[in-house]
Amino acid sequence: MVGVGPGDPELITVAAQRAIAAATVVAYPVAALERPGMAAQIAQPWLVPSQRRLPLLFPMVQEAEPRQQAWQQAASAVAAEVAAGEQVVFLCEGDCSLFASSSYLLLALKKEAPELSARVIPGITAASATAAAACWPLALQDEQLQVVPLPDQPDQARQLLITARDQGQPLVLLKVGRRWRWLRPLLDELELLESALYGERVGWPEQLVLPAAAVAAEERPYFSLVLLRPAWPAVLPWA
Amino acid sequence: MVGVGPGDPELITVAAQRAIAAATVVAYPVAALERPGMAAQIAQPWLVPSQRRLPLLFPMVQEAEPRQQAWQQAASAVAAEVAAGEQVVFLCEGDCSLFASSSYLLLALKKEAPELSARVIPGITAASATAAAACWPLALQDEQLQVVPLPDQPDQARQLLITARDQGQPLVLLKVGRRWRWLRPLLDELELLESALYGERVGWPEQLVLPAAAVAAEERPYFSLVLLRPAWPAVLPWA
Repeated sequence: MVGVGPGDPELITVAAQRAIAAATVVAYPVAALERPGMAAQIAQPWLVPSQRRLPLLFPMVQEAEPRQQAWQQAASAVAAEVAAGEQVVFLCEGDCSLFASSSYLLLALKKEAPELSARVIPGITAASATAAAACWPLALQDEQLQVVPLPDQPDQARQLLITARDQGQPLVLLKVGRRWRWLRPLLDELELLESALYGERVGWPEQLVLPAAAVAAEERPYFSLVLLRPAWPAVLPWA
Repeated sequence: MVGVGPGDPELITVAAQRAIAAATVVAYPVAALERPGMAAQIAQPWLVPSQRRLPLLFPMVQEAEPRQQAWQQAASAVAAEVAAGEQVVFLCEGDCSLFASSSYLLLALKKEAPELSARVIPGITAASATAAAACWPLALQDEQLQVVPLPDQPDQARQLLITARDQGQPLVLLKVGRRWRWLRPLLDELELLESALYGERVGWPEQLVLPAAAVAAEERPYFSLVLLRPAWPAVLPWA
């Protein structure tokens, strides 16, 4: 299981690069079998033509059953390759432990093929890459950082934002997408818009990293996030 | 500003490795000027003998003034090198945005030398590396992950743990160290000990990653952390 980072092929670790080079089969998640798969696109420069490709279906749906079936099928496919003597690497966008397809594959493998030995190589998260692009400190001193997928319900988001604001704690909101339509006005209403950074398709050529106030309230791509810093610690270089 | 990851030299990104190779001066934080500096130790295999070394003092004290002075001195030293035409890289353990020395250096540079152009390259966090070592999912689905330095006061820690337990949300406690003496009994009392993973010096040869229950309640090194998972989402491969 290899984290390939968000977008930029050079945001992969040396360890991940070496694991990919040693693989005979390269597996990766796709949302539909005819789609290319983002993790595979990111890792493209490090792949070797002789390696067999194994796209694994991770459907992006709400229902439990198709997801569970897909996870089990993915685990069976990987276990079969390993049993046949192949060295399999599974590519995972971002980090392998944070809202990651590889976590589900690992859990399914534990059930399906408990004897199989797996190694996980961590990756750069989209939050760290966005923060880096903007010289934005995610967390300082004794701050408590929260990393959450933006809730579907504006009321739940409002509660999260009010807590972060009132406690002066930083917040990362993932998978903003179409919800930016109501999130931006909400940030504005709570007087948090000036404390927010917007990031989209980070690491890709079309990357957008901007003060949230500069991004209009309209539908945005799924791979978008907001970093929020409602306050600063008392002790800083400028004091 | 280059994140070098936690411990293992191979947990550095290709981008970071290239930035280091292109540098003429390698700066890095040290807790005392005669000490080697962890970030520099981690990056050792990627450094070039011809590069000048620039250790910068980041004292580990509670008081504001010595820290502010150190940050400003570090910024002056870096700004002077850049003004003299040097290509300076600053090594940062873990990620550059998460409780990171580079965040303070960046803020100080913004004040000291606002014209200076800086680029930040993210790194692997200790939390991601620990999770990877243990095949431990940091966050899944709509979970809300909290990443916090373990508070000094057991009462504050108790509140954090109770909230995480009652809301069934994952938690990362950083810089456990000597506080493991009271944190372990507290986890036990709150019936969270079996849901916790202990990590220490992750990525280094002496790395320790163990179920928290397997680690006795005694003083541990500063670079230690606890991952907590009080609950699991309803939809998982094993359902």
